[in-house]
Amino acid sequence: MRDISTMLAPKSIAIIGASNKPSSVGNELVKRIIEARFKGKIYPINLHETTIEGLKCYPNVAAVKSKIDLAIIAVPAAIVLSILEECHDIGTKNAVIISSGFSETGASSAGAKLENQIKEYARITKMNILGPNCLGLINLSPNVSMNACFAPIQPVIGTIGFATQSGALASGVINLLPTLHAGFSQMVSLGNQCQIDAVDVLSAWEKEENVHQVAMYLESIPDMAQFKTVATKVAKKKPVIVIKAGTSKRGSMASVSHTGHLAGDDATTDGMLASAGVIRETSLQDMFNVARVFECCPLPKGDKIAILTNAGGPGILATDCAEKCHLPIADLTEKTQSKLRAVLNKQASVHNPVDVIADASAEQYETAAEILLNAPEVDILFVIYLYIAGKNDISISEYLSKLRKKYPTKPIISVFMTTPNYDNEIKKALPKYDIPTFRYVDDAMHCVMRLVERQKYLTDSRIHLPEFNVKAKKVAQIFETAQKNKVHTLSTLQSLLVFEAYGLPVPKFASANSLAEAKKVAATIGYPVVLKISSKTITHKSDIGGVITNIKNEAELTQKWKALIENLSQADLLKKLDCVVVMQQVKGGSRELVAGVVKKDNLHQMMFGLGGIFVEAFKEIAFRPCPLSYKDAHDLLYSTRAITLLGALRGLKATAPIKMEAILLRISQLITDFPQILELDANPIMIANNGTIHVVDARITI
Amino acid sequence: MRDISTMLAPKSIAIIGASNKPSSVGNELVKRIIEARFKGKIYPINLHETTIEGLKCYPNVAAVKSKIDLAIIAVPAAIVLSILEECHDIGTKNAVIISSGFSETGASSAGAKLENQIKEYARITKMNILGPNCLGLINLSPNVSMNACFAPIQPVIGTIGFATQSGALASGVINLLPTLHAGFSQMVSLGNQCQIDAVDVLSAWEKEENVHQVAMYLESIPDMAQFKTVATKVAKKKPVIVIKAGTSKRGSMASVSHTGHLAGDDATTDGMLASAGVIRETSLQDMFNVARVFECCPLPKGDKIAILTNAGGPGILATDCAEKCHLPIADLTEKTQSKLRAVLNKQASVHNPVDVIADASAEQYETAAEILLNAPEVDILFVIYLYIAGKNDISISEYLSKLRKKYPTKPIISVFMTTPNYDNEIKKALPKYDIPTFRYVDDAMHCVMRLVERQKYLTDSRIHLPEFNVKAKKVAQIFETAQKNKVHTLSTLQSLLVFEAYGLPVPKFASANSLAEAKKVAATIGYPVVLKISSKTITHKSDIGGVITNIKNEAELTQKWKALIENLSQADLLKKLDCVVVMQQVKGGSRELVAGVVKKDNLHQMMFGLGGIFVEAFKEIAFRPCPLSYKDAHDLLYSTRAITLLGALRGLKATAPIKMEAILLRISQLITDFPQILELDANPIMIANNGTIHVVDARITI
Repeated sequence: MRDISTMLAPKSIAIIGASNKPSSVGNELVKRIIEARFKGKIYPINLHETTIEGLKCYPNVAAVKSKIDLAIIAVPAAIVLSILEECHDIGTKNAVIISSGFSETGASSAGAKLENQIKEYARITKMNILGPNCLGLINLSPNVSMNACFAPIQPVIGTIGFATQSGALASGVINLLPTLHAGFSQMVSLGNQCQIDAVDVLSAWEKEENVHQVAMYLESIPDMAQFKTVATKVAKKKPVIVIKAGTSKRGSMASVSHTGHLAGDDATTDGMLASAGVIRETSLQDMFNVARVFECCPLPKGDKIAILTNAGGPGILATDCAEKCHLPIADLTEKTQSKLRAVLNKQASVHNPVDVIADASAEQYETAAEILLNAPEVDILFVIYLYIAGKNDISISEYLSKLRKKYPTKPIISVFMTTPNYDNEIKKALPKYDIPTFRYVDDAMHCVMRLVERQKYLTDSRIHLPEFNVKAKKVAQIFETAQKNKVHTLSTLQSLLVFEAYGLPVPKFASANSLAEAKKVAATIGYPVVLKISSKTITHKSDIGGVITNIKNEAELTQKWKALIENLSQADLLKKLDCVVVMQQVKGGSRELVAGVVKKDNLHQMMFGLGGIFVEAFKEIAFRPCPLSYKDAHDLLYSTRAITLLGALRGLKATAPIKMEAILLRISQLITDFPQILELDANPIMIANNGTIHVVDARITI
Repeated sequence: MRDISTMLAPKSIAIIGASNKPSSVGNELVKRIIEARFKGKIYPINLHETTIEGLKCYPNVAAVKSKIDLAIIAVPAAIVLSILEECHDIGTKNAVIISSGFSETGASSAGAKLENQIKEYARITKMNILGPNCLGLINLSPNVSMNACFAPIQPVIGTIGFATQSGALASGVINLLPTLHAGFSQMVSLGNQCQIDAVDVLSAWEKEENVHQVAMYLESIPDMAQFKTVATKVAKKKPVIVIKAGTSKRGSMASVSHTGHLAGDDATTDGMLASAGVIRETSLQDMFNVARVFECCPLPKGDKIAILTNAGGPGILATDCAEKCHLPIADLTEKTQSKLRAVLNKQASVHNPVDVIADASAEQYETAAEILLNAPEVDILFVIYLYIAGKNDISISEYLSKLRKKYPTKPIISVFMTTPNYDNEIKKALPKYDIPTFRYVDDAMHCVMRLVERQKYLTDSRIHLPEFNVKAKKVAQIFETAQKNKVHTLSTLQSLLVFEAYGLPVPKFASANSLAEAKKVAATIGYPVVLKISSKTITHKSDIGGVITNIKNEAELTQKWKALIENLSQADLLKKLDCVVVMQQVKGGSRELVAGVVKKDNLHQMMFGLGGIFVEAFKEIAFRPCPLSYKDAHDLLYSTRAITLLGALRGLKATAPIKMEAILLRISQLITDFPQILELDANPIMIANNGTIHVVDARITI
């Protein structure tokens, strides 16, 4: 990771391309820097001017004859490199290239060539270079106060670090900050990321004490493995909220359900972000709402919400929302209810949602709020206030603010269905009001959900990796032999042996080279049995009729064996056959799941989901990068509706989820021990009618 | 339906319980009525006052000695009835009871008794009575100008009719209208609906020319059948948008998958609203955003969107949103692209989303907008504008407003990521600005989706009911016999015969009373076959082993038949057996669907969804009230993911959706012809590997 601390907090800035021309980028930049009251020195650079916006102007950086920590470059693309050289010559170590006309004009454009030259120059000189084609850089920490970007207005000051791959979007967000009641501590417009990228910024913000929440708008994550490593570290310390835009269509699912075909970009990104503890949003409003709630609220101790309202309808809407967000409404104890009864009107509801009704006094509302905060069965207070008759919404807010200080460990979230004036009035009355306030219950409840999710994430202790007793040596031998023989896809037999060595619940099986052997095996493991051809070169055995199920007795075995051999012989495939696997038939395996691993984006991606024909029909599959912790396995299991198949259904017995988790974890350990595995499929995984779980087929590519 | 036209547009109002006490309901009511400049006469009624808010006050309604069209009653609950009597005595036909303390205090409370008396009084006198326990009534049509409710501020005037079961919520919405850029034409707070209910109001608004969009907040729909009839009529003329709150948990699914057990309240409400053409929302913000968009925009001719932006990021977010909303992004023709290329900067993208990039001039942006509106391949223009440098967002808005007039048939929706000042500035510059403007792409795209859905709803010609050639007489005979014999649940044989008479694709079957008969039947229809016991009294035949599948030959038939009879005999059920049905086995029916009908809320509810163990696991089922039009059947089919099973999956052949639609439509016709059917199950419906579809089992209760 690059150290970009002096870039983010320079003591002197030169603006190359500074200008007196109104509305030009070079003019806007200087104005913003001056307006924000930068704590360091400002050197406008322009060959033709003597002063710019009242500041002395220099013909070039050398003429400044002082140290320049950061060069902001806003000159035509063609001369950017020469400017960089001038900066490097006087010892400047950091540059932000605002100029556009680089790789964004096309991969084979002249601009792309220029960008490559800059990249190479950065590599050689070890300069920190942000951009090109970016909006600039902001650090509003009191000791820096730098707004080196050309967005037209000053951003609200706050605690959010915002990094964005779209500079214009940052400008839009700066416009919206006042209505979002959110503010920036730092903002980095990443531009084309020729050198400094999202990971560098994320890493810099890990220890940046003025950045309390990280928000990122990304259109691509070039190095998923590196992003995961850094994001995991940062997300343990502060909330990291990411919009990953450009969610491409998952594309047409190939009819063969190998993990590799199912690993769409967005699905694996989703798994990576979840695994790293990153909060993924799709809407800008949600992203900044959530950041604002993290800024104002402590993490709750649990997930039980009390809803307090002075109007029935919104209380019901909030309850509906909570259910949609899987958030439990606290059951109020008789003690809490009687306390409420003592202060509220007769017609009030003392059940949750607590409805003080419209004609309650401010005091009644406030007392009810405190009773709920005091109740041990309540972890989060969700208050709804409708300004009805008597203009007291500001006094209610003031009281909530006092409660916030008195009960610092319980989050208070508010929905004020009030007049537009409220925003101005509250700013006057309580400039540092720290109760997040929304106008609609849905927006507010979404944030509560994120608070609860983060609390669960941070307190989840199952973050260790599994250490099962496995027969790694046996697998090593199998892989060595395969590599020696230049075999890439293991035969069914070899794959099953690998699975067995790692303790996966494969039904009893053995290989047979003749009907006589098959009969012996079948007699040992018991009918009904399945026959599967095993071959290093025939990879799609089902397609050629190489799997025969439900063989009930020796007579059927004889008949089917002969048919199989005849079949292969006619298709001229007999010479490719290594052996036939005779396997115990799973009884009533109508519930089919699928697991697998594919190497993608430099990560082994574990897939889990619904199997059989439903893989294609419902696409209920999800991904997590390996290695899987216990928590990862659990989350992956519960991230699709495939989990419901583990339950008791129509007389079929349930399976303990932990058994499925163990399968995922054992596969993860296998992948970790043998990173040469490129792709692995445990498909199908069948749940028998009696609830036992079986990995019925295996396929490994190295 | 009650005629409430004079209630909604009275020429004279008395406020009984009018008061001079600040902030009292009786004072607020008079103030609101005066402030709104009511066009008729206002008579405050109070025994102790001579004037109220400058108006002459009367001791009682009789003392007014003039006609009073509408009495607004805000006196203690106990004396409301006597006031009603006084009003009735002088010929007043309409009353709004603001007072609370009625049935909302409990079903067996004194208040509930009072409410019943009022209800009875209304029935006898035929007075129109709104409430009790409501906020009041608003009609801002220029010739009425009545705000007879005690919400603290005047609502924005607009074209929305809003009816609500929560009065406090209406007050909250009135506070929010300015930020929603929406306004009321009429507002009715329904209160406890002792007489006038949501359906009366909905019906009144059908022909009310000042109500252009209907918005409703409902917590219950007591008469679903009546609501459906009225809503269907109104929704054909104007958009009806409903929030139905209190979406209860669907409850635990019974392990027996009969339609009756699956018909949760919310699922059937959902089906009813969809069938009536009502737009269902869950968030207040969405409801009023959508209403606002219908107010401003024409319906599009098609669903193809062009996105125009001056910033890449938001354009990508909008594209992601469109995909989520199943809205297609228009493919711009080469002609359109070259027109755009001619006016835009080199770095602009002339593909959809069209990105003019940040440094485009206002003229370039505006010209691009017009080019897109002119393009025949574009139905809807979605513009995103970020205020960057140079404050020109108002001039852009002015230009869009001109385009709106020049191209009146294409909706323009805008997202302005601009500063908070914009709202005030646009109000000054363009007081009647008619381009719906949002700050976030998600909110805006949701509304576009609703526009497109409504356009499709109104232009869908498949609204006729099916008229299949069926053997109704045969079914009539079966039902008559059953009724004579007091049979409620038909035997399997009888149910299958009914299905067959209505042309449902039941596999070949016949009844057998002996093994010899069974053999004959099996020989005729061909092996493999299934045996099913048929009995008027054994209703769960699978549970007692009464269904035996996959009988491959006569030997197996003999063996299984004997076992079945022996089994029934041991369980002492043989005497309950009517006969055994021998049915052709469907080959490879791994795709199971389910359809059924249950009578609920006075409507026959048709259910369709995923069958087998997945009924419970995934709950992919939906409902539509009968009778089903072709459109209803189509919508029902496509409203769950069960539809994906009809596709070609892993070598299984596809089935034409029209075949499944025909099954639903034939069942609907059966229900319409024989409304005595209480419950019907076509379960399972199997899709064979070759793509043929079969209704394999039947159950009918009358």
